[in-house]
Parts: sequence; C-alpha cells; structure tokens
Amino acid sequence: MTALPETVVLAVGGNALAPAGLGDFAGQEERARHVAGIVAGMVGDGRRLLVVHGNGPQVGALAMAQEAVAREVPPQPLFVLGAMTQGQLGYLLAQAVRDALEAAGRPRSVAALVTQVIVRPDDPAFSSPTKPIGPFFSQGRARRLAQARGWDVAEDAGRGWRRVVASPEPVEVVEREEILRLLERDGVVVACGGGGVPVARVAGELVGVDAVIDKDFAADLVGRLVGATTLLLLTGVERVSLDFGTPAERPVDVMTVAEARGHLAGGQFPPGSMGPKVAAAARFVEAGGREAVITSLERAADAVEGRAGTRIVRG
Amino acid sequence: MTALPETVVLAVGGNALAPAGLGDFAGQEERARHVAGIVAGMVGDGRRLLVVHGNGPQVGALAMAQEAVAREVPPQPLFVLGAMTQGQLGYLLAQAVRDALEAAGRPRSVAALVTQVIVRPDDPAFSSPTKPIGPFFSQGRARRLAQARGWDVAEDAGRGWRRVVASPEPVEVVEREEILRLLERDGVVVACGGGGVPVARVAGELVGVDAVIDKDFAADLVGRLVGATTLLLLTGVERVSLDFGTPAERPVDVMTVAEARGHLAGGQFPPGSMGPKVAAAARFVEAGGREAVITSLERAADAVEGRAGTRIVRG
Repeated sequence: MTALPETVVLAVGGNALAPAGLGDFAGQEERARHVAGIVAGMVGDGRRLLVVHGNGPQVGALAMAQEAVAREVPPQPLFVLGAMTQGQLGYLLAQAVRDALEAAGRPRSVAALVTQVIVRPDDPAFSSPTKPIGPFFSQGRARRLAQARGWDVAEDAGRGWRRVVASPEPVEVVEREEILRLLERDGVVVACGGGGVPVARVAGELVGVDAVIDKDFAADLVGRLVGATTLLLLTGVERVSLDFGTPAERPVDVMTVAEARGHLAGGQFPPGSMGPKVAAAARFVEAGGREAVITSLERAADAVEGRAGTRIVRG
Repeated sequence: MTALPETVVLAVGGNALAPAGLGDFAGQEERARHVAGIVAGMVGDGRRLLVVHGNGPQVGALAMAQEAVAREVPPQPLFVLGAMTQGQLGYLLAQAVRDALEAAGRPRSVAALVTQVIVRPDDPAFSSPTKPIGPFFSQGRARRLAQARGWDVAEDAGRGWRRVVASPEPVEVVEREEILRLLERDGVVVACGGGGVPVARVAGELVGVDAVIDKDFAADLVGRLVGATTLLLLTGVERVSLDFGTPAERPVDVMTVAEARGHLAGGQFPPGSMGPKVAAAARFVEAGGREAVITSLERAADAVEGRAGTRIVRG
C-alpha cells in the first residue's frame, strides 16, 4: 500500500447522473456538470481525487435496448454493458470535471480509466443471486429467457419479473497501478465505474462474469489499494440516522467503527441501502483509512472539510 | 513534443474485432485475444505501444439497438455511443493484452483510457457529411428521422437509407498528458478508440459533436503528440499496391513521402480505404516520425521488425 498525502475517494450513485427514469442525454450531461462542479470544488492543496460512479439506470437502459434487437444483434453479456457504461459516464464526468477545473483556474490532469475488478468465482453470492438488473418481463418470457440464456430470474416487488445476478465481494483492482500513475501530481481519476467490470481469474486468465459489484464496496477497496485517506460515500440524505422512520429517529455526526459494527449487527441499517455504505465505511477505517463520511451530493464539499455528514472514525 | 525511445502506434480496424456481421460476444472476445497475441508479440526491449482501434460494427450495433427502443429510452447521441464502444473494446483489448503479456512472462502496465479528440467546429467536413453510420432505414423513415432529429441522411450503395455524419480532421487529443503517463515504463495503452470521442471547444468548454474521426488520422495525431517513432496502420492486405486491380498491379515495399504524395495526387488510392492510410502515413513521417508502415494484422509483428508491409519513409 502506497501512502499518498490526502487522497479522497468519492462514490456517487448512477441515479445522481440520471434524470427521472432512464434519462435523456441533455439531462445526464447537466447532472454530470452539477456533480463535476462539486468534485472540482474539492480539488486543491495537493489533494488527489478518485471518483467511483454507479451505473444502475444506464446499464438498465442498455440491457433494455439489447433485448429489443436480440434477434438481429446478439446481446452482449452484462459485464460488457458495464464496460460500456464506464465509457459513457467516464466520458461525461471526466469532460465535465476538466472543464470545471479549467473554469476555476485550477487545471488538473483528469482521466477516466476502464477498470476491471476481480471477484472470487467461489464467492457465496454466486449461489444466491439477488440483485435485479435490466428490463421487466412477464413471468412466461422471464422463464423462457432464463432457460435460453442460463439466467436467474425473480419477481421484483410485484412490478414484474427481472433477471437477478450475484453481488460478490470485490477483492482486487486490475488497474491499481495505472490508477496510481494517473493520481500523481494532483490528478483526478474516474475509475471502477459501476463497481468495476467484474472479472474472475481462471487458469491465469481474466474472464468477465455477469455480476454487479456494489460501488461503495469497490470504492472502499480501491481506496485501500491506493492508500486513500478519506472515503466519501454519497447518498440521498445528509447524515445517517439511527432508529430511522421511528419517533426516536436521530441523525448521527460521528460514529466509531465499533459503534458502526454494533448498529449493523443490531439491524439499524437496511441491507439494500444504508447497510452497505456503513459496512464499507467501517471496513475502510479498520483497514487504516483516516475516516469515512456518508453524506449527500449537496453537502459533499462541506463534508470533506469536516462540516457535514456522518463521520466514521477509528474511535 | 516529448521524444520517447521507440514508441509504436498501432491502428487496428473495428472489423478486425467483429466476427461476421454484428458479431456475438464469444467471437469478439476471440478476435480481441488474437489481436492481443500479436500486440503482445511487439512488446519488449523498452518499446512502448499505443493501440488505436476502430469501432464501426460496434457503434452500428449500438445505434440499431437505440433506435429499436427510442420510444421508451431517449437515444444517446452518436458521440456517447462512441464513448460506450471505447469502454467495450477497451475492456476487451486491455484484458486480452494483459493476459497475453502475463502468459509470455513479460507483464506490463496495460490500460484503456476514455479519450476525447478535438475537432474544429468550422471544419469544412461539417458542411458536407458523407460518412454513413448506424442502421438502414426506408427512404420515408429516414426522412422523418432527419426532420425529427436534425440528421443528414443519404442512400447507401442501393442498400437503403442511412444517417450520414461529418468526418472532420482531428486537431488535439484532450488526454495527451494522461496517455504519456501511462506509456511510461514500457506501458501498453489503448486510447482514441473509434478515432476518439469527437469534441469541439466552444466558449472554453468541451462539447461532444456527432461525427466520426478517421481512426488512422487519430492514430497519426496521437502518435505525433506522444513523440512516437513508428505508425503501424493495419488493413486487409500485406502491402499497398500501385495500379491496384489492373494488369500492372504491383505491391510496394518502400515509398518516400514525396512518392506517396505523388501517388495520392495521381488518384492511385481510393478515398474510402487506402487513401486515408497513405495520407496519414505521409503526414506522420513529414512531422518527424521515423516511419509509417501499412500492412495486415497477420504481418504486423514482422512489419515492426522491418520484414513486412509497405514502409513510408522520409527518403
């Protein structure tokens, strides 16, 4: 682990880059420029910045388009669609961040890197896929696709049937060394988009696998690998709350890792949303990171300066 | 211009990465691994390698899929589809080259970078778009799409109507500095895929434009910008021929830049195929490159060693 002075990993959701629904281009570009303005505001004083973005709505739109022409054009596997969204969102974000830094008179190296993230083929997640992706189908069509393509399918919240895939643990970032090279000299790097293209190492070769790596877990991993000091996980609220949705609900300013672990074990955070964020934050700090902060996009710049969000610290 | 010792820019067509027609994934992966084996064979002795790939079939498949769901999902602009193919093919190529080098016991840094290439908004190409892209339409549908989306459309060789876009000159590579960083210490970099995502600089901001940059021209430009010594342009034949298709046809081993310019002016090379390659080769050598070589994928490794292809030299 190379220790770099003040390196911030920022994880931003795919939804933050998609206007309502599946989104038109103008809306996506506007969102990317909004996110970029906030990112650019964090750059300075030798601070390096690594941006990890989600890709849920974008990969969903691609999967829907692929299904519509599946007779004429053989559909690409999910991990290739993920690589496509790294190009799409990496382009939008890198361009917008570069422009924002130029406009602020602080030009920096900005780049989006196509990134592969290694998962274990024997990760227990593969035996119980739970992450719904892509378009909705009727039950009959879902079952036929499951048979034809080897998919797992499941009903999604009464809205129809969808493909479900595994969400395995990320264990290694293939392009770790290249990310470090690009971070040098105050660089801004967009990497591990969509959690990274999931690959397994099989008989000495890298092989793409259809899975979705949680982008917050990927951000924690890549942060540890590049010796990041701060992990900043964006979500819809400014702070994490305990007893959420009850009369006793209260937002938290600071949690120690031990407290975070205790709340996780006590079922304070739902598995699909705040749970993974708190778990990623705890892991990052346990592994030697200075602090992890969970906050909203709007408060991100304040959070980096210690003025907003829920901080998870060693204690 | 930074002079690096022995840097080779290799331009490989999108067709070399697509099996017959629009291609299934297994076929594309197999092609990528074939290309990667040849690329890996060129690495060694401190030589740096920059791979520029085309994306014609891949961007065509994406455009077709987008049109099929245009009612439910707003279509992304052509330049975003180009960015997507940089993710798709960058992933495939970088993974395959990394594996091939590991297998050969010569591990190297390998990375695919999302790349923007600047064009001039007043490039004359924009006033006469000629490059057909994406799916075929009936004349009526083509006219309706032209009206609704501001497209130019034209009949393509009697096979139907297609959208046509401009093919402007590339003038700058936005990520030039980042490419140089990744090339350091014998790195292999995949960049400027599909000729690069075309962008214009408008009022200090980068703005994507719907156009197709010739990937051989992009390879020449990025080669000059990183101080490459050799430009290797791959095509379907081992050598360039004069009086092609006539009884006087003869393949050429070496051409001086002056000879190449003379043959271009004399109409020896068709504008859609060999013409741009010879023009890119001549420009690269005129600007200070040691040599440009036009050859086939199969003879590429031999060509780098001076044993195959048509060499364009200063004379």
